[in-house]
Amino acid sequence: MSVTAASGFAAAGVVAGLKSSGKRDLAIVQNLGPLASAAAVFTTNRCKANPVLWSEQVIADGVVSAIVLNSGGANCYTGARGFQTTHETAETVAERLEISAGDVLVCSTGLIGDQLDLDLLKAGVWDATLALQSAGSDGPDAGLAAAEAIMTTDAKPKEAVQVSPAGWTVGGMAKGAGMLAPGLATMLVVLTTDAPLDSEQLDSALRQATRVTFDRLDSDGCMSTNDTVALLASGAIGVNTDLDEFTAALTEVCRSLAEQLQADAEGASHDIAIEVVNARTEDDAVAVGRSVSRSNLFKAAIFGNDPNWGRVLAAVGTTDAEFDPYAIDVAINGVQVCVAGEPGQPRELVDLTPRAAHVLIDLHAGEATATILTNDLTHDYVHENSAYAS
Amino acid sequence: MSVTAASGFAAAGVVAGLKSSGKRDLAIVQNLGPLASAAAVFTTNRCKANPVLWSEQVIADGVVSAIVLNSGGANCYTGARGFQTTHETAETVAERLEISAGDVLVCSTGLIGDQLDLDLLKAGVWDATLALQSAGSDGPDAGLAAAEAIMTTDAKPKEAVQVSPAGWTVGGMAKGAGMLAPGLATMLVVLTTDAPLDSEQLDSALRQATRVTFDRLDSDGCMSTNDTVALLASGAIGVNTDLDEFTAALTEVCRSLAEQLQADAEGASHDIAIEVVNARTEDDAVAVGRSVSRSNLFKAAIFGNDPNWGRVLAAVGTTDAEFDPYAIDVAINGVQVCVAGEPGQPRELVDLTPRAAHVLIDLHAGEATATILTNDLTHDYVHENSAYAS
Repeated sequence: MSVTAASGFAAAGVVAGLKSSGKRDLAIVQNLGPLASAAAVFTTNRCKANPVLWSEQVIADGVVSAIVLNSGGANCYTGARGFQTTHETAETVAERLEISAGDVLVCSTGLIGDQLDLDLLKAGVWDATLALQSAGSDGPDAGLAAAEAIMTTDAKPKEAVQVSPAGWTVGGMAKGAGMLAPGLATMLVVLTTDAPLDSEQLDSALRQATRVTFDRLDSDGCMSTNDTVALLASGAIGVNTDLDEFTAALTEVCRSLAEQLQADAEGASHDIAIEVVNARTEDDAVAVGRSVSRSNLFKAAIFGNDPNWGRVLAAVGTTDAEFDPYAIDVAINGVQVCVAGEPGQPRELVDLTPRAAHVLIDLHAGEATATILTNDLTHDYVHENSAYAS
Repeated sequence: MSVTAASGFAAAGVVAGLKSSGKRDLAIVQNLGPLASAAAVFTTNRCKANPVLWSEQVIADGVVSAIVLNSGGANCYTGARGFQTTHETAETVAERLEISAGDVLVCSTGLIGDQLDLDLLKAGVWDATLALQSAGSDGPDAGLAAAEAIMTTDAKPKEAVQVSPAGWTVGGMAKGAGMLAPGLATMLVVLTTDAPLDSEQLDSALRQATRVTFDRLDSDGCMSTNDTVALLASGAIGVNTDLDEFTAALTEVCRSLAEQLQADAEGASHDIAIEVVNARTEDDAVAVGRSVSRSNLFKAAIFGNDPNWGRVLAAVGTTDAEFDPYAIDVAINGVQVCVAGEPGQPRELVDLTPRAAHVLIDLHAGEATATILTNDLTHDYVHENSAYAS
């Protein structure tokens, strides 16, 4: 169950022929209402793909009736013709569903610098809209088909759901993350809810949820040109919705999807949680965790099951966070290998054979905390990302 | 020829037994005068090794009579005892050479988090000072022995020399760089000259030279805790020295050493020069080049001989530099693969089989330029840095 778990949504995933593998590569999620409120966050990369440029305009009024997503091509660095492809895709969806093209979000993922085949896209949209009008398009199989259609090198589709005691539901699907995509690490996420929330409420909830979930997943430090996280509300369950409760449930869905992205990161052999505690501010904690998550030396050490805490401290030392370098403690998988900037328990005690690795960094500078999720740097990562296309 | 190319210097490199390989692991470079002026720059990492903490104090008065360097141990995160080891090493050098310990720089490189064996260090210093008093200690063999004694995983010693028409000489030796050192990427550089310059002049020249050479070598984005670049002047050639000419010669020596470090970066199969042109400011050009040099996706692509210009633009897009994303051109090894943010010449035309790779990024935003040197991300990099110690 994912984007169709909430009432008021239909989904479809079809084979448009954009992927050479012949697998599903085009999805549509339709909001059947009664509401059509929405919010979205996009990559902060300044070199944005055409669908992002389009969708930033669509989301401006907070109204979205459908979202169309394709794998098999990012439509990025494809110029005016590429933008026209995005525009015509939205127009085709709009005609078929009898909605406004200005209410259709578009997402693309895959190889960049290549034009998408507009004819294939249009035919795919036609098939998908037929599927949307078929029985079961609001059911779990349709949701799963959509989740499959947005996969690139993902090994598994990614879905998550939370149901509130009040009666509303929030669900979602995701693809990609960091090293996952040889194309460029694109993360696409569609979240749906039947709670009767307006676009401002959705925007507030979405920004809070992504700030502590997707924004703290940093698999390989590379930022995509296509990242999009969209949240659509149908209002089909007309119960009073507490925004804090909704935000908490949405955050849980995002957290589950982020963890699934981390776990499926191609080439990775460890899922690493870098927990920074007793920071002066949350920003400090995030900066320290992110710096460690971007140290290739640290990530290669974890691949080699080497609890190399010196590489942790060296990465911490490159940040502006507040700390005394000689007061920092580091524990790896529960073993306190560094105490106050000096060797603590013997590193031989650390067991890094499990996939899950936990690095705990105590800055002794305050009370804030944050956890960054990352992966190790492996031979398979290098292989996946060098044996690419062209 | 390296640190002994300039008149007024003696050098020694001996086996102290710190390295398990039994190779040379302790070096001393002595300034025989008549001047003892010096300058140094150190890592900006806030988690600094003990020898850096010591040497920052020594350099404060601009007077240095000798520098002692060891491989086989970084003496970093070793607390008060580690600082005492550094202090006693300097004291031992001072006693033996009849100079002040406060005029002895100390550098260390190797595994971090382990105490150095002070007895071995002291015995090594004794041997090295004997060698300094032997015939030939001011000759090329002695310089080479010192250059060998500071190697960790370096495949070759690194030396460079420039001789001015005016009669003065500047030479140097270096070890390490980025992925080179499984220990932590430490770069140690000793530069010597017989030009009669004071410490302020040396400091000015050294900062200008390192800013455009070592500071633009970014092999794997990881910053060491031990990096030190020291410049000593003996004044043994008493000719009038033009500071601009000296700075230019010093920059050439530093450039040669930086290129040798890049070429010897372990695991690397490409030496990549990222040249950013027509930037609004030099800082912009450096920021753009550095961002590309730190993209694992870009670096893995180059390893795979894949001219993936989309990954270049995606890295450019994460910076604050001034540019229009749809005006950027990218050429790889002379082929204009991207023109104004769209595909240019076919990527199949690019030949990435040579070790040297050149990425030219035209921002069309001004007239400033900068080149960052980096390496590709390879299986051997992962292997070297995961199969490490412990």
